[in-house]
Amino acid sequence: MPTALNLPMVDPLPAETQKYFDICVEKLGMIPNVLQAYAFDIDKLNTFTVMYNDLMLADSGLSKLEREMIAVVVSSINKCFYCLVAHGAAVRQLSGDPELGEMLVMNYRVAPLDTRQRAMLDFAAKMTNASAEVGELDRQRLRDVGFRDRDIWDIANVAGFFNMTNRVASATGMVPNPEYHAQAR
Amino acid sequence: MPTALNLPMVDPLPAETQKYFDICVEKLGMIPNVLQAYAFDIDKLNTFTVMYNDLMLADSGLSKLEREMIAVVVSSINKCFYCLVAHGAAVRQLSGDPELGEMLVMNYRVAPLDTRQRAMLDFAAKMTNASAEVGELDRQRLRDVGFRDRDIWDIANVAGFFNMTNRVASATGMVPNPEYHAQAR
Amino acid sequence: MPTALNLPMVDPLPAETQKYFDICVEKLGMIPNVLQAYAFDIDKLNTFTVMYNDLMLADSGLSKLEREMIAVVVSSINKCFYCLVAHGAAVRQLSGDPELGEMLVMNYRVAPLDTRQRAMLDFAAKMTNASAEVGELDRQRLRDVGFRDRDIWDIANVAGFFNMTNRVASATGMVPNPEYHAQAR
Amino acid sequence: MPTALNLPMVDPLPAETQKYFDICVEKLGMIPNVLQAYAFDIDKLNTFTVMYNDLMLADSGLSKLEREMIAVVVSSINKCFYCLVAHGAAVRQLSGDPELGEMLVMNYRVAPLDTRQRAMLDFAAKMTNASAEVGELDRQRLRDVGFRDRDIWDIANVAGFFNMTNRVASATGMVPNPEYHAQAR
Amino acid sequence: MPTALNLPMVDPLPAETQKYFDICVEKLGMIPNVLQAYAFDIDKLNTFTVMYNDLMLADSGLSKLEREMIAVVVSSINKCFYCLVAHGAAVRQLSGDPELGEMLVMNYRVAPLDTRQRAMLDFAAKMTNASAEVGELDRQRLRDVGFRDRDIWDIANVAGFFNMTNRVASATGMVPNPEYHAQAR
Amino acid sequence: MPTALNLPMVDPLPAETQKYFDICVEKLGMIPNVLQAYAFDIDKLNTFTVMYNDLMLADSGLSKLEREMIAVVVSSINKCFYCLVAHGAAVRQLSGDPELGEMLVMNYRVAPLDTRQRAMLDFAAKMTNASAEVGELDRQRLRDVGFRDRDIWDIANVAGFFNMTNRVASATGMVPNPEYHAQAR
Repeated sequence: MPTALNLPMVDPLPAETQKYFDICVEKLGMIPNVLQAYAFDIDKLNTFTVMYNDLMLADSGLSKLEREMIAVVVSSINKCFYCLVAHGAAVRQLSGDPELGEMLVMNYRVAPLDTRQRAMLDFAAKMTNASAEVGELDRQRLRDVGFRDRDIWDIANVAGFFNMTNRVASATGMVPNPEYHAQAR
Repeated sequence: MPTALNLPMVDPLPAETQKYFDICVEKLGMIPNVLQAYAFDIDKLNTFTVMYNDLMLADSGLSKLEREMIAVVVSSINKCFYCLVAHGAAVRQLSGDPELGEMLVMNYRVAPLDTRQRAMLDFAAKMTNASAEVGELDRQRLRDVGFRDRDIWDIANVAGFFNMTNRVASATGMVPNPEYHAQAR
Repeated sequence: MPTALNLPMVDPLPAETQKYFDICVEKLGMIPNVLQAYAFDIDKLNTFTVMYNDLMLADSGLSKLEREMIAVVVSSINKCFYCLVAHGAAVRQLSGDPELGEMLVMNYRVAPLDTRQRAMLDFAAKMTNASAEVGELDRQRLRDVGFRDRDIWDIANVAGFFNMTNRVASATGMVPNPEYHAQAR
Repeated sequence: MPTALNLPMVDPLPAETQKYFDICVEKLGMIPNVLQAYAFDIDKLNTFTVMYNDLMLADSGLSKLEREMIAVVVSSINKCFYCLVAHGAAVRQLSGDPELGEMLVMNYRVAPLDTRQRAMLDFAAKMTNASAEVGELDRQRLRDVGFRDRDIWDIANVAGFFNMTNRVASATGMVPNPEYHAQAR
Repeated sequence: MPTALNLPMVDPLPAETQKYFDICVEKLGMIPNVLQAYAFDIDKLNTFTVMYNDLMLADSGLSKLEREMIAVVVSSINKCFYCLVAHGAAVRQLSGDPELGEMLVMNYRVAPLDTRQRAMLDFAAKMTNASAEVGELDRQRLRDVGFRDRDIWDIANVAGFFNMTNRVASATGMVPNPEYHAQAR
Repeated sequence: MPTALNLPMVDPLPAETQKYFDICVEKLGMIPNVLQAYAFDIDKLNTFTVMYNDLMLADSGLSKLEREMIAVVVSSINKCFYCLVAHGAAVRQLSGDPELGEMLVMNYRVAPLDTRQRAMLDFAAKMTNASAEVGELDRQRLRDVGFRDRDIWDIANVAGFFNMTNRVASATGMVPNPEYHAQAR
């Protein structure tokens, strides 16, 4: 089972879902367990994937790598095993820099980032640790290093999203696919 | 503006969105600012509302009130003004018990809850404060008071969702509609 | 009982205490439970009311509203149900601004305060969260926005007082009078 | 000055206050700085001393030493220099055990206490660290080791009081009289 | 430089040190940067290596892998990049289980450990997070799962040691050798 | 026993160890319990004393008093009874200022230190509380008040060392020699 909960996938899967999963196998070499976990209810699965794809893949002032960097920094603070494994691998792949992936997993403050990316990750970290203390000064700091308000929205929503999925993964005992561990080392 | 970010709504709104907002005015007496905030990008708005409605309104072993109770307890820990105002009102309305709403906003431990609801809220609180420490014992405690695995999934996902929206609201300076304050007092 | 402790009021009450309680009923529509709680020992009751009245009602460079604002912010950090209910109502009444009361209960950082009041509340919050770290820089910040040393004394003593009563209320399971909830909404 | 605030004592002191201070010099060899600090306003001084004397010296199911033990444990958590110096000396004197004073200043968990006193200090520590989490189970634990409800009231009020004075002392930069340091070593 | 401090190695190195470093290159394929960092003062280098070798390699009731497991769990709590990289690699190598290494780096609570090793790591984690709260109950819990007092000494000293080196590494900006990242994946 | 663990000293002690302990008795009037604790294994004892003596007594840009000041501040944060007693006494003796010793034990922020020593202790405190957040800015702050990189190394290593010994002492229930309490008062 992809989690510690006894929630078997719909069987058989609807054709569209089966097709989506086949594409995963073809492109990623696996069906990510998070998708298998949601597949006990196809509406929930679709809702999750639509939001995920919008946040991580749609047009944005943030590169895909930057969105994965936020994912890893948030997951590091929340110590979410599933997300650190899956998105740590994504940072290694997208950046071609395995050390960067490790730095973000372990302590993003040691990574040699430019001012813009460091400010982005500091904002995501503060949102994760103490969101009630985020205020106009924090938003202005992002504008000062070149982010537009639309970008700030995206930073906030990506960081928010992983604060959701980290907690869902930990609370349900979600297990990452073993394939991630050796990828892009 | 519904947030501190300069992200105007699409203008004019697509017919379907306009219709949805008209229904909000009719039913709620307002368009919740969170919807106006997302309406700078209709895809993002739709994605958000689909997930929101699935979590809070779809069939579940948790009543709608219970899901709102989780929303308020999570928002209380995260000190999210927007969500406490909006979902505090929802608890007052759905329960017909304004004091219960205040208790959950201020310190849910003082509320005279039955064992089942207290366990549900303790789980949501632990997920919010220390999700990395949630384990099989915590899930078993929920099963012991009558929750099925499907219910645990729903508790985890509602609590997770408000850990996302609390942070998005605080990070973007989202302002609740003033109408909520006096409702169901 | 006004608390979870079995400590009945002196019976009959001394004439002066009875008179004081009658005035409470006349002016407030109730005898605040905190007074009933202390009334098992008239010396303790009198000591408490003398200190309370000196701090909250005597001459000061802080307005009565400002002292209630400190009360609510301290009680919000300590999550004291009794004090949030009673003093949240006081802020709503004295300010004529129910939203302000809610903001201070939920997260005072979202309230649109002037620099002076924000500095006052930041000082009270730091005293509550980390008093050992308060130092000359913090006091100077208060002087810089116009507070005299006598005012700083009053801020410190009001914030200190609610750090006492919050803990007494929570530790004894003190229950607020239900009348507060609907007041000044 | 007894604090970092410029608040000179009333000059001349009223006869009754002068007499009280003379008694302090006679009995303690000094006028405790906390009294000098409040003496800029005789009403505030009197209010403080009445509450202090009621809590620490009046009849109670707790011995005077036990009340001083609570004072030191609360002050240790809050890292209040003034109160640790003054009440650490009191514990050394009342107990005749200088090591006990040091243990309570540094880490009360290492002190070889009986079950009753350990429960009392654990309750005071929880009230100081996380009062919102104190509940019926905590009160019952005190009853189980022999405390009556009246004693629980006193524990709560002494622990609450030092959560006030610790913060007032730190926030005002109150300095302890140097005489305390060498006492009862 | 192996750290952010300008402290060049003694040049030339004493023959014995050079020989030790040559052995490192031969056996490990590198001279660990921590050794290069201490080599500005050969006495300090020797002192460090003697303690390190005694703790991690000498006879003990704990296996070498178990000592490395403690190293990683402590370093994970302290978020020490250097030690997580170096000792994460050691866990992967000694265990032959790359996933175990990742689990201990990210959140040791998800690792499928036996009762004995879980108790050992819980003790090391408590020592790291809240050593003042460790008491006889915690030691007894270790004895109950089979540890002798000598083993408890070793657990305490290994966990203590990495609380030192984590802080030295972070405070000096120590950089791990890049060779570790790809090892034993 | 010097700790809560049943680990008797080697008996008879090797001649060199016996001589070292005799010197302790002669110079200090006691054998510090930490040495007796390690004496169940002479290699471990020697390793510990060599590191201790190198850090606390060898040449350094920090005076011996300054190294003891760091020891006390770190031990205060970690609430280590053994180290606060032993090194508090050392600060009182080396400084000839008993009040300074008490200030560092209780809350170093109240001590009237010069800028250099305050920066040194702030660095040690940050290393103890949040070493993962120490960065180049913190090191630069030390250089700005006159510390050389070699001194920063020593600050980091002394602060690191007491983060080790505090935890070893608390985890093993180490008891300080009673002689310390009355010294240099």
